[in-house]
Parts: sequence; structure tokens; C-alpha cells
Amino acid sequence: MKKLINDPKNVVNEAVAGFEAAHSDLVRVSHDPIFIVRADAPVAGKVGIVSGGGSGHEPMHGGFVGAGMLDAAVPGAVFTSPTPDPILAATQAVDGGAGVLHIVKNYTGDVLNFETAADLALAEGIEVAAVIINDDVAVKDSLYTAGRRGVAGTVLVEKIAGAAAERGDDLASVARVADKVNSLVRSMGVALTPCVVPHAGEPSFTLADDEIEIGIGIHGEPGRERIKLEPADAIVDRLLGPILTDLPFVSGDRVLLFVNGMGGTPQVELYIVFRRAAEVLAEHGIDIARTLVGNFTTSLEMQGMSISILKLDDELITLWDAPVATAALRWGR
Amino acid sequence: MKKLINDPKNVVNEAVAGFEAAHSDLVRVSHDPIFIVRADAPVAGKVGIVSGGGSGHEPMHGGFVGAGMLDAAVPGAVFTSPTPDPILAATQAVDGGAGVLHIVKNYTGDVLNFETAADLALAEGIEVAAVIINDDVAVKDSLYTAGRRGVAGTVLVEKIAGAAAERGDDLASVARVADKVNSLVRSMGVALTPCVVPHAGEPSFTLADDEIEIGIGIHGEPGRERIKLEPADAIVDRLLGPILTDLPFVSGDRVLLFVNGMGGTPQVELYIVFRRAAEVLAEHGIDIARTLVGNFTTSLEMQGMSISILKLDDELITLWDAPVATAALRWGR
Repeated sequence: MKKLINDPKNVVNEAVAGFEAAHSDLVRVSHDPIFIVRADAPVAGKVGIVSGGGSGHEPMHGGFVGAGMLDAAVPGAVFTSPTPDPILAATQAVDGGAGVLHIVKNYTGDVLNFETAADLALAEGIEVAAVIINDDVAVKDSLYTAGRRGVAGTVLVEKIAGAAAERGDDLASVARVADKVNSLVRSMGVALTPCVVPHAGEPSFTLADDEIEIGIGIHGEPGRERIKLEPADAIVDRLLGPILTDLPFVSGDRVLLFVNGMGGTPQVELYIVFRRAAEVLAEHGIDIARTLVGNFTTSLEMQGMSISILKLDDELITLWDAPVATAALRWGR
Repeated sequence: MKKLINDPKNVVNEAVAGFEAAHSDLVRVSHDPIFIVRADAPVAGKVGIVSGGGSGHEPMHGGFVGAGMLDAAVPGAVFTSPTPDPILAATQAVDGGAGVLHIVKNYTGDVLNFETAADLALAEGIEVAAVIINDDVAVKDSLYTAGRRGVAGTVLVEKIAGAAAERGDDLASVARVADKVNSLVRSMGVALTPCVVPHAGEPSFTLADDEIEIGIGIHGEPGRERIKLEPADAIVDRLLGPILTDLPFVSGDRVLLFVNGMGGTPQVELYIVFRRAAEVLAEHGIDIARTLVGNFTTSLEMQGMSISILKLDDELITLWDAPVATAALRWGR
């Protein structure tokens, strides 16, 4: 295992400390329990938005804390759900009196721990709503999930719900728009290589030199099939087929096309993928109205990528375009 | 070789086509010869700024084309200088009548080809100035370089010179500020793994499972020494020593601290590195006034990172903070 770390058990602590040192203009950090909040939290009268989950998927979620997106992010150990304590503490820290939305990826541990934290918050008089993200069309159930997994589509939910909260929508409205994004986004990924969880020290799975895994989960959970390495265009087509037929996306739709790197993929490859995905959407008469390309929902140093497609309407475009100021996404004022 | 590509000889063409499809709000692309220009080029009366070099370092340089930064980027083949033709064409495309600045990393091929293009442009009546970037303190001469290599500090030159051009500075002034940034920035990197150039198909060098290369070049050129893998903090200290003593940076200095990923390094590791670098600067009484963390000057999928430190003054801070709208750096209006 070759990593730029000190002690495997300090990876999250030290990374969060570095994040705090780098982005003190945007965030504050609680070290015990560990969570990251936007610098001006709580914002009075605004719905607070909290997300979180296992570390190792950065910039998700800490990189999305800031004006116009998340109020707090709660990182667990690498690929491990945070416990209810830090989720509760983050919920308290961002409560501006208008309630708090939990954005939770559909993994059993995350769902349970966010639910427990929500119950505890409610007992303290904080109103909490939750949206469970399950955008991955690859498999029906999975290693850590009943139903579909939550993957890169989470980024789009967090941006759009964050914009709704920022403009002053109430908790029910912010939860509605988050649910709407989740209902309109579909994703699927591929791995060329596994990754190594620091405290494990070994790859969580293995792939032969000429093998790739179609439908990989973001913790290396099994996908649909292992196949021999193919040209990028053929791989893109394998991912887009199930994505497009699932919603389905049809001619005349306006969409956001999101090509997400898994952490170790060079940017030239992500753009080669984008190029083919754009060709395929054009063939289907689907209009790419917005785009996102880069490493946003990663699996440490895994080589691979995922494609997410979100069906847009005027409301979602307005919220997507709204200003955002986070470490990983920033535009507008 | 496991890559998300189609044919190795089409990597740059297809990646640029994908870049164009993803960022048509920001850029236009010429496919023959290949270069990327900002959507509104040429901007009348504004100094144009052109950079370029071998591909494989993305987002540098195409990701920095847009308002407030580069007017054009010229990508060569992977790790290979672009020829004078596309550099000349890009120079013509961005000439708004106020002259054009070439920002050139110090590699023999780049320097020669940009010089030739500048001579040809001058013969057409386009005034061209050039700044040669040589921020890498690792080695005195190198595989493709007489003198020091140009590495991640280039990003800082491009942002700050871009802001100077955007506010209307004349060619001599933009060249002066670019030279100033180059004179005040120092960098050094480390590789944990090599990378594979697509048309070569094999790693350009090899490292044992427990070995790292201190002072690596961005094309895998040899650095200062190969050592056994050490804790991240010890590696950071090895890079910071030569960086700090070179300028030198001293107590009371205000700096921009830039931790740059080489392409395959997880973000948690970059922040662990940032944390230690910030500690060391604090011990030296150096004030971190601005920060940048992420994959900006990469070497395909190489695992590793570089640290750059730029000594700031009020002028440089104002220009750094100025709005920028590119695929890879975006803030302000």
C-alpha cells in the first residue's frame, strides 16, 4: 500500500484538519465529534442541510459545504457510516429554526444512523426531514444496501436542494425538490482498478490486468458483470443503455450530463467519455442543457468513472445555476 | 495498460472534442490545428494570453481558458510539445490588437516552438511577449530542460497574468506581472507511482513497491533521489526544505500555499499533505493568505503531489482574487 498518509487510523482526522486549514474562509470544523459546517452556520431562518457518509469519496461531502449547498457534512471512517452522535451534533449546529434536511445515500448503516440522529434531534425540538438517494441503476440490492445504491447523483441533489434552501424555501419544499432530483437522476459506473482502504491495507477486490467491472459500487461492491477491457466508447454505451431506459430519458428531454471520475482517472479519459456520451444523447434527441465533468464522488484512487443523467426542467435549471461557494463547486457571487 | 480510451493516437483529439462538448459556454475549439480559445476571443483591446504544452497535464492548460485567465491553450500530443503551427494559429485567434503573451513552461521543445510561433506572429504584425516558467527547485537541469523545469507554479502565473490582462493592463505590464509571479513561486513534487503514456503503453519509469521519487518531473523525469516510502509528514518536510530555502521564504511573508495532485492521488491525501505544510509554514512564521488544493497540473494517473509556494503582495492578492470563469477555476462574477 503506497499512500501519502501517516497512520491509517488518523487519515480522516488529519484530512479534515487539512481541509479546515485550507478552507477557513468557507467552513468551520468540529473535531470531536467530527463534522464540517459552513462558516456562518447556523443561518437564521434558513433550512439547514446535512449530508455525510463514509470518507474516501472526497470531495463528497465536505467539499460541498458552503453557501448555496450543504450546511454541514459528517465524515465517517473510510467507507464507514458516521455514527448518530456527530450527525446529531451537525444537525444541532446548522439548525437556524427552519428545520434540517438530511441527504442520505442508500446504504443500510447510513440510513439507520441518520434516522437515529433525526429521532434524537426531533426529541430536542428540531424538525428533520430526510431524502434517501438511490440513483444507481446497476443492481437492485447490493452488499451494504437494500434497494438501489446512492452514488454520484447525490452531488446534484445536494447542489439543487442547497440552492432551494438558500433562496428561503421551507423544509417541506426543500425536501420536495431533493426528492424530485433523486427521482429524475440515474447513474452507473465502471471500475478499471480497485482501491485500497488505508486501515485494510489491501484492495477490497481484485481485477485481472485485462478486466473491468461494469456497474461497480463506490465502495467496490459488485456490479453487473466483469468483462474484458473494451474501447472507451463501448464501455460508455454499456453504461448509457441501462441509464437511458430506466427513467426513461426520451427525445426532447433536457438533461444535465455528469461524467464523474472515481479518483484515479486522468481528465483526458473523462472527456473522451463525455464526448461519446454526448454523441449517444444526440442520437436519442436528448438535449444536454448543463454539464459536469470531474472527480466529485470518488472511491479513493480507484480508476474508473460513472455517468449520471438528470432530467431537467426550468425549476431545476434555475436552482442548478444559482450561486454556490464551496471548496469543490463554486460559481456566481 | 488499462485506460478509458479508444485508439491511443486519438486520445488528444477525442478529449478536446469532449472538452468542447462539455464547456461550449466557455470555449470554442479549433480541430485542425488543435487549440482551445475562450468563447468571445479575440477580445478587442485586451492582451491575449496563450499557453500550451504536451497533453496529459489536464486541467492544465485547456481547463484554464476563459474570462480572467487564458485566451487560448494549445495541447500537443501527450507529454509532447505542440508544433509552431497551432501556437501561431492560437496567437492569431486571440489577438485583439493589444499584443499576445505566451506563457511557456521551461522545456526545450516548448521554448523553441513557442519562439518560432512568436517570430511568425511578429512577421504578421502581432506583438508577442513570452515568459518562461521555471518554478521547480528539484534539479538544475533535466531530461527535457536546460535550467529548472516549469511545473505547477504555471497555474498561478496563468491566473494572475490573466487577471492583469482582463483589467486592461498593456502587454509589457502583463508580461511584468507574469515574470514577477514566476520569480516568487517555488515548487517541488514527489511520485509514488509512474504513469503510462497511451502511445507508449508502458510506464515511463518504474518504482519498487516501497519506493518513491523525490523531486519528480511532471513527465516522470528523474528527481533528486529515490527513497523508501515514508509517512506523509516526512515527505512534506523533504519537499518544503528546498522550497523554503530557495527564494527564501521568511518569517512575516504572506504566501499562497498550493498542494497539487498529480492525477491519481485521493483528495484525503492532498489534505493530509496540506495540513502538514500549513504546520511547517506556521513554525516558520509564514502567513498562509491564500490556498489552492486539487489536481491542477497532473501527469495522467500518476500518484503523487507537488507543493508550490508563492510569495504574495497586495498586487498579487488583488489579481488572484479577481473573478475567473474557466472549466477548472471559477469564482466571482
